[in-house]
Amino acid sequence: MADRVNRRILLVRRPRGEVEADCLRLVEAPAPDPGPGEALVRTLYLSLDPTIRGWMNEEATYMPPIALGDPVRAGGVGEVVESRCEQYRVGQKVFGLLGWQDYSLADAGGRAVQPLAEGSSATDALGLYGITGLTAYFGLLDVARPRAGETVVVSGAAGATGSVVGQIAKIQGCRAVGIAGTPEKCSWVRDDLGFDACIDYRREDVAARLRETCPQGIDVYFDNVGGPLLEIVLDQLRQGGRIALCGAISTYNLPEPPPGPRNLMNLVLRRGRMEGFLVLDYAARFPEAVAKMSEWVAAGRLTSRVDVVEGLENTPAAFRRLFTGGNIGKLLVKVAEPELG
Amino acid sequence: MADRVNRRILLVRRPRGEVEADCLRLVEAPAPDPGPGEALVRTLYLSLDPTIRGWMNEEATYMPPIALGDPVRAGGVGEVVESRCEQYRVGQKVFGLLGWQDYSLADAGGRAVQPLAEGSSATDALGLYGITGLTAYFGLLDVARPRAGETVVVSGAAGATGSVVGQIAKIQGCRAVGIAGTPEKCSWVRDDLGFDACIDYRREDVAARLRETCPQGIDVYFDNVGGPLLEIVLDQLRQGGRIALCGAISTYNLPEPPPGPRNLMNLVLRRGRMEGFLVLDYAARFPEAVAKMSEWVAAGRLTSRVDVVEGLENTPAAFRRLFTGGNIGKLLVKVAEPELG
Repeated sequence: MADRVNRRILLVRRPRGEVEADCLRLVEAPAPDPGPGEALVRTLYLSLDPTIRGWMNEEATYMPPIALGDPVRAGGVGEVVESRCEQYRVGQKVFGLLGWQDYSLADAGGRAVQPLAEGSSATDALGLYGITGLTAYFGLLDVARPRAGETVVVSGAAGATGSVVGQIAKIQGCRAVGIAGTPEKCSWVRDDLGFDACIDYRREDVAARLRETCPQGIDVYFDNVGGPLLEIVLDQLRQGGRIALCGAISTYNLPEPPPGPRNLMNLVLRRGRMEGFLVLDYAARFPEAVAKMSEWVAAGRLTSRVDVVEGLENTPAAFRRLFTGGNIGKLLVKVAEPELG
Repeated sequence: MADRVNRRILLVRRPRGEVEADCLRLVEAPAPDPGPGEALVRTLYLSLDPTIRGWMNEEATYMPPIALGDPVRAGGVGEVVESRCEQYRVGQKVFGLLGWQDYSLADAGGRAVQPLAEGSSATDALGLYGITGLTAYFGLLDVARPRAGETVVVSGAAGATGSVVGQIAKIQGCRAVGIAGTPEKCSWVRDDLGFDACIDYRREDVAARLRETCPQGIDVYFDNVGGPLLEIVLDQLRQGGRIALCGAISTYNLPEPPPGPRNLMNLVLRRGRMEGFLVLDYAARFPEAVAKMSEWVAAGRLTSRVDVVEGLENTPAAFRRLFTGGNIGKLLVKVAEPELG
């Protein structure tokens, strides 16, 4: 099939700080023809995640950096539109690292994509049951390990991961306190998601509000944002407290990360544990998490929200919005409607 | 028995920064007469530990602060010289929180002291089998949990705790790399204690030397000192690395602790764990640790060193020396010879 135009957003300069316009270039080229053993996938949705910012840097993180001249790496859901590969059939919905582009090639090896389960929605596959929701599940339950009655504080509480962390904490019988950046976010987190409280870190004194909302101290802190909040939380950490370090979105756009908390000694005095994790390490257990979260959704105990931007060309602006706190829930770009239903 | 003079070193001003001379006052008074149910203990040795510095501050740590006007709290070994308490017999050697003074009262309750086991030396009871040695044992084996073949780095390697940490790491089949502050200390750690390497942080480029001595990265860091070393270690932390936070002696005399490491995000990328602990939480298992360490001593696999200062009046100066790195091994003050053998 010919005449498919592939718009691609390439990383052409590594950002130092914010991802400025000249770091990226939108180019158009004919979509590639799949060779033997390959399939052509059309991108339907892209997942915008803070971790992508780390992949743009020169230093390897837990994945190699995005090569200059390559499309920006990103997870997405697509539709197989041509196939010369037994593994994929035309019309099939798949997910994988499709990148910021309309079309990509998949094969059974290094560029494999996974079939989307029958009946599952593209937005759920990237949101609640995608990397961000799974991160909430494993980071909370396996790393922080809250016990019923404990107090769980989560930053980025209106984000794709934080919003799920607090709800799972409530399901575990914990008290959940969110930290977010607008009154609208706080109201969603508190009134719709059922957190016990949500602190607006831009308008309120976080330390004072944490003392109010966590009078017994903080047993678990799920840190999505990094930066100065960690020091405030460490001051109120309860004996045996645990901090699950998930990410540090507040620092990714800084030319250099800020100094860490002055009070790590509190980890000694309170016998605290701070632990980092990457959800990819739990891949073998993703089905277990999806099954459990589906039950909670069916029982009306877990909900999620997506913030969908239309158009591949709007991806860079949407991505920047992640770092200014502009999204509520999971931020996605809708690139195309399915061709084949 | 009369005419016993009790010299007492009282905390009369809380230090802000270093413990200056006017924070302490040496007073003399008659030793107290034990009432019914009490015994009089004469101090033989005092243990000088960095944690005492924290007790001098106004804020409670894991113990209440030393009250102004009280003798400085410190562990020690003493001899029961008078007794009106069934639990203690005259001539018995005991250990407990005797304080910076010649005499103290013990009872069966809140001021209890423990009998020293037959045949155990006062210096061992305060050093290898005391809080500092036990800290090494539980911090390494229970908190950091090294596996054979892993690389263990320990700061304060020539100190009472660090010197034991590295030796136990070797016994576990690990590679042990110390960090210490003088060539003499490094040579003791390497040549006498059998560490694989020891880095002189005052004379060498620690980051470069760690890369050399830990080519696979650092699996375990046992942190006795806090401060900037932690950031250097985090940069070289291996996947799944563990940091046991034991103390932060480099910061205790600062008016305000310095900022923490900029690279806590490495805990995420490397799935690292940083955990604080206090040895008192392991009190129920002290006998197990002492038995195990005694076996290693008998087998010639574990050794220790004490640095003994003579005279109660020299305690403040000796204590200051802890923070300038002047001691090698366990720093003790010898206050008196046993009266009764």
